[in-house]
Amino acid sequence: MKHQDLLFTNDVASALDKLINDAGSPLTFILVDDNTRRHVLPLLLENSTTLAGAKIISVKPGDVNKNLDSLSCIWTQLQEGGANRKSMLVNLGGGMITDMGGFAASTFKRGIRFINVPTTLLSAVDAAVGGKTGINFNGLKNEIGVFNEADAVIISTCFFSTLPVAEVRSGYAEMLKHGLIDNNDNYNRLLGYRVEDADATHLLSLLQESVMVKRRIVEEDPHEHGIRRALNLGHTVGHAFESLAMRRGNPIPHGFAVAWGCVAELVLSHMKTGFPSPELQRFAQYVYESYGTFPITCEDYPELIELMHHDKKNMSSDINFTQLGNIGEILIDRTASEDEIKTALDIFRDLTHQ
Amino acid sequence: MKHQDLLFTNDVASALDKLINDAGSPLTFILVDDNTRRHVLPLLLENSTTLAGAKIISVKPGDVNKNLDSLSCIWTQLQEGGANRKSMLVNLGGGMITDMGGFAASTFKRGIRFINVPTTLLSAVDAAVGGKTGINFNGLKNEIGVFNEADAVIISTCFFSTLPVAEVRSGYAEMLKHGLIDNNDNYNRLLGYRVEDADATHLLSLLQESVMVKRRIVEEDPHEHGIRRALNLGHTVGHAFESLAMRRGNPIPHGFAVAWGCVAELVLSHMKTGFPSPELQRFAQYVYESYGTFPITCEDYPELIELMHHDKKNMSSDINFTQLGNIGEILIDRTASEDEIKTALDIFRDLTHQ
Repeated sequence: MKHQDLLFTNDVASALDKLINDAGSPLTFILVDDNTRRHVLPLLLENSTTLAGAKIISVKPGDVNKNLDSLSCIWTQLQEGGANRKSMLVNLGGGMITDMGGFAASTFKRGIRFINVPTTLLSAVDAAVGGKTGINFNGLKNEIGVFNEADAVIISTCFFSTLPVAEVRSGYAEMLKHGLIDNNDNYNRLLGYRVEDADATHLLSLLQESVMVKRRIVEEDPHEHGIRRALNLGHTVGHAFESLAMRRGNPIPHGFAVAWGCVAELVLSHMKTGFPSPELQRFAQYVYESYGTFPITCEDYPELIELMHHDKKNMSSDINFTQLGNIGEILIDRTASEDEIKTALDIFRDLTHQ
Repeated sequence: MKHQDLLFTNDVASALDKLINDAGSPLTFILVDDNTRRHVLPLLLENSTTLAGAKIISVKPGDVNKNLDSLSCIWTQLQEGGANRKSMLVNLGGGMITDMGGFAASTFKRGIRFINVPTTLLSAVDAAVGGKTGINFNGLKNEIGVFNEADAVIISTCFFSTLPVAEVRSGYAEMLKHGLIDNNDNYNRLLGYRVEDADATHLLSLLQESVMVKRRIVEEDPHEHGIRRALNLGHTVGHAFESLAMRRGNPIPHGFAVAWGCVAELVLSHMKTGFPSPELQRFAQYVYESYGTFPITCEDYPELIELMHHDKKNMSSDINFTQLGNIGEILIDRTASEDEIKTALDIFRDLTHQ
C-alpha cells in the first residue's frame, strides 16, 4: 500500500494548496457533482491560491450516476484537458465522487495522482480511506473498481453545515461502529456526543479518532482477506434492511441501516459470544433515540434472511457476520442459523421499542 | 509487485491444469478472440483435464476492438457467468487479449486472478510480462488501464506454427531489442538464429532468456520511473515509422517498426554516446536481411520528427530516447536535436540499402 497523507483540518483550502505545491504544482482537475459544484467549490476556490487554473469536471449527483457513462465522461474530460501522468485529480464530494474519481484517476494512463476531499460525514469516515474505488455496473454496486489509496485525503467537518442533519446522523453510525470495534474509551466518547450539537471542532476530533481506527485495520489487511471484515459489523443485517426498504419503495439512509444492523448483530453477539447485556441495552437505547427504528414484522423475516444470503461477503451457503465478545473484541467470519437470526430480529424489535 | 509464476513450456494444457488445480479449481473463464477460439482453444481443451467446465468469453480480434465496448462485454459475461472474487480468467491470445483481459480481471469486483497464455511471439516476449494492462480510448492507445501482474504466465512457442512468418519475425524484433540492452552473449545467440528455421525448442530457450531480461528490468522499476525506459529502445523512431505508415494507408507490423527504429536509434547512440560502428553495421545488416527497410526520403523528416514530439514518454519539449554506449550499456532519458535526428535518418537509409 502506498503512503497516504491523511490531514484533519477545517482549513481545507490551505491544506490543498500545500499539497499541490508540494506535488510540484501539476496540472490539476477537480471532480465535483452538481451539489458540491454549487455549495462547496466556490468556498474552496475563494480561499485557494493554487486552484485558479484548475479544470472543473462535473457529473450528475447520486449513486445512480456512479456508472460507466459518468466514468467515461471523466476520462474524456481528463484527456481533452490535456492530463498527463503527472497530473492531479481532486475529488470533492461524497462517497460517489471519491469512489468514482478514485477509479478514474487509478486507470487514466494507468494511474495519475489523486486527492480525496470528502464533503459528507459518511464519506469522510468511510469512503475516503481504505483504497476502495469503483463504479456500479449492470445494477450491481461497486462491481467494477480497484484497490488504490489516494495520495492524500483531507478530512474536515466544515462542509457539514450545508447538509441535512439526517445525512450527518447517517455518517455518525459508521463512527459508532468504529467505536464498537475499537475500545471503551473511544466508544464512550462517541455516546457522549449528539449530532444535533453540530460542534464542528468537537466532531473533527471524534472523526479523527474514528478514521484512524479504520486506517489501522485497513493497513493490516488492505485486500479484505481477514481482519478488515471487522468493518462489516452491522452491515449484514444493515444491507438486508436497506434492500428491503428499497423494495418497499421507501429507501432509508445507509447509516441508519448500519445503526439498526449493529443493534441486531450485537444481539447475535450476545447470544453467540457473550457480548454483555448492559452494553447491548445502552447501545440500543442510543440508537433508538438518534435513529428511531426500522419497522418489521415476523412476516418480513424470510425475505430479510434471503437478502442476507445474497450478501457478496458470503463465500459459502452460510451467512457471514462480524460479532463482538465485548467492546473492542472482534470475531470475524462468524455464522448464525436462521432460527438464531429470527430470535435476534425479535429482540431487535423489543430493544427499539417496536 | 505480486509474485508471478512464469512458466516456459510447450505442454501448455498440463501447465494450465496444474495452475488451476493449485488455485483450488476455481470457476474458470477463458477469454479468446475469433482467431484463438478457432485455432488454439480446441488444442487446449482437447488436452486439458480442468477446462471442460470453463466458460468461454469471445471478442472480435484486432487492436481496433481493444476498446470500452469489448471490455464492457467481458465484464458482463463474467457477471452473468457468476464470477466471484475467487474466480480465474485465462487470457488466451495476442497482446490485445492479454492487455484487455488483464484489465478486465484487475477491475472486476476490484480484482480477480488471471493467467496469461500469449499465443503470438510479440505478446509472449513483450505484452504478457510487465503488468501493463488496458484498452485504447477515444483513439489513443492504452489510454486506460492499470499496472497489475498476472498470477501466472505460460510462455510457449507451440502455437506459432499457426501464424504467418512475418508475425513471428515481428515478435523477434523485441527479442533483438532485449539482446541489445542485455549483453553480448544473449545478443550473439539471437543473431545466430533465423526465424525461418521455425525450431520451436530452440526458439523457446531464446525466448526464455529474452523474457527474463524484461522481467529483471520490470521488477527493478515496475512503474516506469527510470530503468524500465530501457525497454523503449527503438520505440521513439519505431512509433513514428508506424504512425507514418498508418497515415500513408500502408500499416507495418509493430516489430518491423521496432527493428528499423533500433537501427536509427543505434545510429544516434553511435553519434552521441560512442556505440561502436562495427556493431552498428552488423545489426543493421541483420535487420536489413530479415526485415528489409522502411522507405523514406528527406521530405518525410519533418513529419517523422513531429510524430516523435507527440510520443507520450516525452515529459518536456525534448524528444526522449533510450541510447546505448555499447551492447548492454543502457543510457535512458537521452535527447537529440532535430539536426542530429535528420542525420541519423540519413545514415539509417544508407545502412538499410535505400
